[in-house]
Amino acid sequence: MMNPHNSPPSRGRRRLLGRLAAGGLAVSHAAAASELLRPLEVASSSRVPGAPVLEHPYGVPSPHEVNVVRRSARAWPLPGAASSMTPLADLHGTLTPNGLVYERHHGGVPDIDPDQHRLAIHGLVRTPKLFTMDDLLRLPSESRIHFLECSGNTGNEWNGPSGMPVQLTHGLLSCCEWTGVRLSTLLEEVGGVTASGNTSGGWLLAEGADAAAMTRSLPLDRILDRALVVYAQNGERLRPENGYPLRLIVPGFEGNTNVKWLRRLKVVNSPLQTREETSKYTSLLANGTARQFAFEMDAKSVITRPSPGHRLTTHGYYPITGLAWSGRGTIRKVEVSTDGGATWRPARLDGAILDRALTRFQADWRWDGGATAILSRATDSTGYAQPTRAELVAARGLNSQYHYNAIQQWRVDASGEVRNA
Amino acid sequence: MMNPHNSPPSRGRRRLLGRLAAGGLAVSHAAAASELLRPLEVASSSRVPGAPVLEHPYGVPSPHEVNVVRRSARAWPLPGAASSMTPLADLHGTLTPNGLVYERHHGGVPDIDPDQHRLAIHGLVRTPKLFTMDDLLRLPSESRIHFLECSGNTGNEWNGPSGMPVQLTHGLLSCCEWTGVRLSTLLEEVGGVTASGNTSGGWLLAEGADAAAMTRSLPLDRILDRALVVYAQNGERLRPENGYPLRLIVPGFEGNTNVKWLRRLKVVNSPLQTREETSKYTSLLANGTARQFAFEMDAKSVITRPSPGHRLTTHGYYPITGLAWSGRGTIRKVEVSTDGGATWRPARLDGAILDRALTRFQADWRWDGGATAILSRATDSTGYAQPTRAELVAARGLNSQYHYNAIQQWRVDASGEVRNA
Repeated sequence: MMNPHNSPPSRGRRRLLGRLAAGGLAVSHAAAASELLRPLEVASSSRVPGAPVLEHPYGVPSPHEVNVVRRSARAWPLPGAASSMTPLADLHGTLTPNGLVYERHHGGVPDIDPDQHRLAIHGLVRTPKLFTMDDLLRLPSESRIHFLECSGNTGNEWNGPSGMPVQLTHGLLSCCEWTGVRLSTLLEEVGGVTASGNTSGGWLLAEGADAAAMTRSLPLDRILDRALVVYAQNGERLRPENGYPLRLIVPGFEGNTNVKWLRRLKVVNSPLQTREETSKYTSLLANGTARQFAFEMDAKSVITRPSPGHRLTTHGYYPITGLAWSGRGTIRKVEVSTDGGATWRPARLDGAILDRALTRFQADWRWDGGATAILSRATDSTGYAQPTRAELVAARGLNSQYHYNAIQQWRVDASGEVRNA
Repeated sequence: MMNPHNSPPSRGRRRLLGRLAAGGLAVSHAAAASELLRPLEVASSSRVPGAPVLEHPYGVPSPHEVNVVRRSARAWPLPGAASSMTPLADLHGTLTPNGLVYERHHGGVPDIDPDQHRLAIHGLVRTPKLFTMDDLLRLPSESRIHFLECSGNTGNEWNGPSGMPVQLTHGLLSCCEWTGVRLSTLLEEVGGVTASGNTSGGWLLAEGADAAAMTRSLPLDRILDRALVVYAQNGERLRPENGYPLRLIVPGFEGNTNVKWLRRLKVVNSPLQTREETSKYTSLLANGTARQFAFEMDAKSVITRPSPGHRLTTHGYYPITGLAWSGRGTIRKVEVSTDGGATWRPARLDGAILDRALTRFQADWRWDGGATAILSRATDSTGYAQPTRAELVAARGLNSQYHYNAIQQWRVDASGEVRNA
């Protein structure tokens, strides 16, 4: 079943649910213990030979998972200048499989022959150079797990609950292992930055080879210790829609600065005020001034299960689980409220807590069948805590599309339905 | 280009190669610096709109990567009782994308409806139970990154160099983030193990719902702190060929014990001596006795680039990179030799060094154009060091198909060709 909370309970299931409602962590099927003292019936799947090895030399998901796909929140007037979202409610752990990494393109997905692709590094550097993909593969590499989040993610919640499920509210968010060459190694390869483009004051212009020639200016001193020029994600070469054959990864910075189909890095003395950092990706504040070059995605979290579209089928135990992340470091703690924000308690953080990567949290919850609301709040390693929507609106007003990171509330009706309301 | 070392150099490339051969880490294209002072030509991919968002709601690799697929080392008489290997030479970082995780099946890949699937936990437990997938999703979960290796991996090297490339010698090896329920949590759900099946002496029988009813006995005290019953890999539900909808993960143990399509866990007092632990997966030693229940995969490493099939196209710098792992803990160090084993130096370990997970290593190498051999040697957190083939053969003889973990040597000819010889 795609969604564990969506189906009406079967008769056997209803009996189980009755038992579950009695309390405790116990989870069991209607099958009595005595039934299990006899040999199990042979599984029908054991009676026939299965599909051969290499039926799919490159594997695909189970047909039973056909609804776990990327989706768009709306129809876009230009299909290449659009986005699609990661199905967070159906995912587990912290990594996003490459086939489900969110998309946000400004001019569609180009088809680039890696043998023909070149990366130019020029501007205020001693020896400008063109790099082939082979050149890049002959430099020392580094692999790191980092999240990517579009700065427009969750923007539809600025004006209050949108009613949308978590895939469409928070799904411009993914997390992969990225492999490539450190930006600092590449700058060494071009002889270093010249005095006028010194790294304490220098900027880096990054340009993509797509139809939008996506172009952003980045402050060198804030990215040089961690930016990568990558050719692989989750072990294999980049997917076309993720920048094949080459992209920039600037850990923690808004997604669009991680320029895909990267063809050019130019060291300059000041930001070049491109379209994507003036008319776009800049926030108009309530006082009429602009918040430009915000870059870092602030600490944020969201409950992915249960979440809108799920339905609690019985009173009793549910594990609340979700994701937390910060563009400024690691997640220090996540707190969960199951009474609409009146009280909070710490969630468990699962596995390794990595820098600028998704962190999975989990909290035990016993639903008593009443209407309530569930929320999560992340605090990062800088001490910054995710704000309420009211706090965020007070600071930024209602004109902005970008960098919405407020605490997200899901309502739970007495019927068990979970809604974004 | 699929393989950075395979193609003959173009004219421009030859000029570059001359420069590289001059020494230093410098990598650069023939394009002169002066050329880069003029504006770059607009990329052809910038002149036309790209493909739309959601062209693939579930994404697929670039057509340029069509050769990066699983492969079998030989034709198998029964296509469902066969294996396929992960293309290690083409992968980066430490994770294996789900579509490239190796296969080893004994009765083919069953098609299982997750709504109908049940897991029975019975035997020496207080309250035997059947669990639905929904039941399992309502228990606390855990995610961890672990490698899987078939105990037959690299078995074709027992009699000396097989001539095969690394995909076929070491490709029964993959690494994923696994999400599911701790075995210990499930045993709590059935009221715990009864006195006669106490965890210090108890065994666990695990059975799959495939046509082979793959069945193994496992020592509870050695697995209870870390075994997981998992429903997800790398963020999404298991792939069919990886046990959809449910499998056992026993971190560090030989692959076949991580029973796929898991339908039954029975607590018993002693191993049940199944076919897969008597006639198979047991090693005949030189003295005629059997090495049974070896389980843990010992520390091992292999250089994946350059490796057989690659060709060094010029003298000069190459980063040597590969993978190291141990079924008994973390990797403490990897050493590399570039002179046929005469001298060794430490390799860099990349990223987080995780328990029973693949670890990426890297070492700088300057090839002087002479014939040589390159090797790697792993040492794990227990202090165990990967043996030479001679040491392994002295200890185990030549009758065994399983648990081959000797140091692997790749020859480099003066022509630059890399061979398993």
